[in-house]
Amino acid sequence: MGNGRPAAIGSRRRYSWAVSTPLPVPPPPLRWATPEAGGPAVVLLDQTRLPAEEQELVCTDVPALTDAIRRLVVRGAPLLGVAGGYGVALAAARGDDVEGAARALAGARPTAVNLAAGVARVRDAYRAAGGRPAAALDAAHALAEAERAASVEMAAHGLRLLAELVRGPVRILTHCNTGALAAGGDGTAFAVALAAHRAGRLDRLWIDETRPLLQGLRLTAYEAARHGMPHHVLSDAAAGSLMAAGRVDVVLTGADRIAADGATANKVGTYPLAVLAAHHGIPFIVVAPVSTIDPAAPDGAAIPVEARAPEEVTHLHGRALAPPGTPAYNPAFDVTPPALVSALVTDAGVARPLTRGSLSRLLRRATG
Amino acid sequence: MGNGRPAAIGSRRRYSWAVSTPLPVPPPPLRWATPEAGGPAVVLLDQTRLPAEEQELVCTDVPALTDAIRRLVVRGAPLLGVAGGYGVALAAARGDDVEGAARALAGARPTAVNLAAGVARVRDAYRAAGGRPAAALDAAHALAEAERAASVEMAAHGLRLLAELVRGPVRILTHCNTGALAAGGDGTAFAVALAAHRAGRLDRLWIDETRPLLQGLRLTAYEAARHGMPHHVLSDAAAGSLMAAGRVDVVLTGADRIAADGATANKVGTYPLAVLAAHHGIPFIVVAPVSTIDPAAPDGAAIPVEARAPEEVTHLHGRALAPPGTPAYNPAFDVTPPALVSALVTDAGVARPLTRGSLSRLLRRATG
Repeated sequence: MGNGRPAAIGSRRRYSWAVSTPLPVPPPPLRWATPEAGGPAVVLLDQTRLPAEEQELVCTDVPALTDAIRRLVVRGAPLLGVAGGYGVALAAARGDDVEGAARALAGARPTAVNLAAGVARVRDAYRAAGGRPAAALDAAHALAEAERAASVEMAAHGLRLLAELVRGPVRILTHCNTGALAAGGDGTAFAVALAAHRAGRLDRLWIDETRPLLQGLRLTAYEAARHGMPHHVLSDAAAGSLMAAGRVDVVLTGADRIAADGATANKVGTYPLAVLAAHHGIPFIVVAPVSTIDPAAPDGAAIPVEARAPEEVTHLHGRALAPPGTPAYNPAFDVTPPALVSALVTDAGVARPLTRGSLSRLLRRATG
Repeated sequence: MGNGRPAAIGSRRRYSWAVSTPLPVPPPPLRWATPEAGGPAVVLLDQTRLPAEEQELVCTDVPALTDAIRRLVVRGAPLLGVAGGYGVALAAARGDDVEGAARALAGARPTAVNLAAGVARVRDAYRAAGGRPAAALDAAHALAEAERAASVEMAAHGLRLLAELVRGPVRILTHCNTGALAAGGDGTAFAVALAAHRAGRLDRLWIDETRPLLQGLRLTAYEAARHGMPHHVLSDAAAGSLMAAGRVDVVLTGADRIAADGATANKVGTYPLAVLAAHHGIPFIVVAPVSTIDPAAPDGAAIPVEARAPEEVTHLHGRALAPPGTPAYNPAFDVTPPALVSALVTDAGVARPLTRGSLSRLLRRATG
C-alpha cells in the first residue's frame, strides 16, 4: 500500500515499539517497495512476532510471499486479497511465470475467498493489458485502495447500526484480529469498534484471546492499545460468563468467506460466540467487505475449512505444552449459520436479517 | 495418599517420565510422609510442571502447603479437600496452631467447597479427640479413602448412564482435568471416561485444552496417554464446530461447587459447553462427589467465583504474549444453571433431571 520506507532486501527490519508508546498508528501491515526503494518487493509486518517485536519481512519473490502467507506472517481475509494481488504484481515485475505464481498464491490458504479473488483480479488486469507489469501493479494498488475505502464504509454503516441497537456507551466483544493488521484501512469489525471509540461511544472492547494462535491477545490488544481504546482480553472460554453477567452489549466479528445463503466462515471460536450470543439475546454482527461474499458457495458446507497442524495447539514458541505426540483437532475456521447472525455489515450496506434474499439484494446494490 | 516413598524434606524429587512410557499409573498426586519416611510432610506431585516434568514438592509446614494450593501445585475440588485435611493433620503433627492453620488452608482458594469441608472435617475430629494429632491424621486418611471410594461409585453410576444414553462406542468431550490429579482414585468425569475405556466402549476422549492454565492439554492429555485412552486435544474455541459436525456424543465435566438448586460452578469454559451442548441436543453431564454439593448455597449467585491474576492469560512460562500492561478478565470458574445439566452423577447415585428436588433427595440418600 503505497511506497514506504526503503526495504532491506532479504533481511528483517526491526522497530522497537518500546521507544515511543503508543506510536500514533501501527506500522503498515503490508507495503510495496519500488525498485528505487530496494524492490520490487512485498514488505510485510511480521505478525507472528507481534506484539513483542515489530519486524518487517521483505518478500522479493512469490515463493517467499507464499510461505509468509502460510505461516500467517500476513493474515486476515481482506489483507490476504491485497497480499495476493501484490504477489501477482511482484511476479510480473520480476518477469516470472505470472500464471504459475497466481496459482501458488491462490492455493496458499483455502478458506478466505478474498485471497483467490485478489489474485484473480490482478492477474486478469495483467492479462487484459497484454502482460504489462505496470498494469498488474496498478491493479494491486487499486485493490489495496478499494479495501481501504471499504473499511471506511463498513465503519460508518456499523456505527449507525450500533447507535440503533445500543443506547449510551457500548461494550463490544470481538474475536481474532480484524483491524488494520487484517484488512485495508482500519479493518472490519475492529474498524467499527474504533469508530465507536472515536465517537466517544466505546465503553469497553472485550477481546477474545483467540486460540490457538492468539491473534486477539497478540494483535487486537496491540492495535487497541495503539489507539488508546479501553480494552480487556479474556480467554475464549470466559466469554460465556461475561455474557451471562450482562457485560456484553454486542458481538462484532469479521468473516473469511460468506456463502450465498449467509453462512459465515470465520476464525474458529466464532460459531460458539454466535450460539452464546443467541442464548443471551445479544446482537451478533458480522462485519466484512462485499469481497468476502462468495456467491459460488451455495451454503456453509461448500466452504473449505482449513485444517492446520496439531502443533499450533500443543506447542507455543517451540515449547511443548502437551505430552509428546498428543494429537489435536485444529480447524482454523468454523461456520456460523445465518440464523445466528443478527446483521451483516458490509461496505455496500447492511443485510438484516441475514438471509439469501438480503444478501443477494446487497450484492446487486454493490455491483449495480 | 498413605505412606509412599521416603520424601526428601524441603527438596523436589524428579522422576523422568520418558524412562518408561507409559508407566502403569501416574505418580500419586498427594501422599502423606510419616516421620519415619522423612516427614511429617504432605508430598505433592507438582501439577504446574506437568507434563514436562514429574516433580514432587515436599510441604513440611502449612504455609508451604497453602502456597502450593494457591499456585495450583495441587488442584481439583475433591483433591483440594484431601489436601486441606492433610494440612490440618500436618499442623497437628508439628504442634502448630491447628485452628489458625485450618483458617489459612480453608481460605487459600474460595470456590471449591471441598477444601473448606475437608479442613473442617479433620479439624473437628482433632477437636473431638481433645487435640490428639493421631486423630487428625486418621481423619485425613479416612477422607482420602472416602474420596477414592467415591471415584469408584461415580465411575459405576456414570458408565451405566452412558450405556443408557449412547449405543455403541462413545465419543466424550471433557473440560479441564478431573482425573486422579484432581480427585481421589480415578477422579470424577475422567473416571467415567476411563471406565468406558476399560469396558471397551470409549471411541474417543476429546479434551478441551482449558485456558488459561491448560489443565486439559497438560494434565488430562497426560493421564489419557498414561492409560492408553484414544484422545485428541482441541482449543476450547473448537468445541462448537466439533459438536456441529456430530462428533460428540456426550459432554462430561466435574464441578467445584454445586448449589442447592443444582447450579454448578466449574472451571471457566464449562458454561459455554453446556449452552453449546443444549443447542446441539447433546447430553451434558456433571460428575462430582456428594462432597461437592453445598446445601448452604441456595443458588449459583451464592457461590463465590475466584478472580485470578491477569498474567495467567497474558503470560505463559513467564513470557508475555500480550502487549505490556494488557488488562485481562480472568475468572477461574463459571456457573452453569441446572436447566442446562442433563444429569448429575455422584457417588450416591444420579440426579436426572437436575433440580432442587432431585438434588435434595440424592443428599438424603447419601446421608440417610
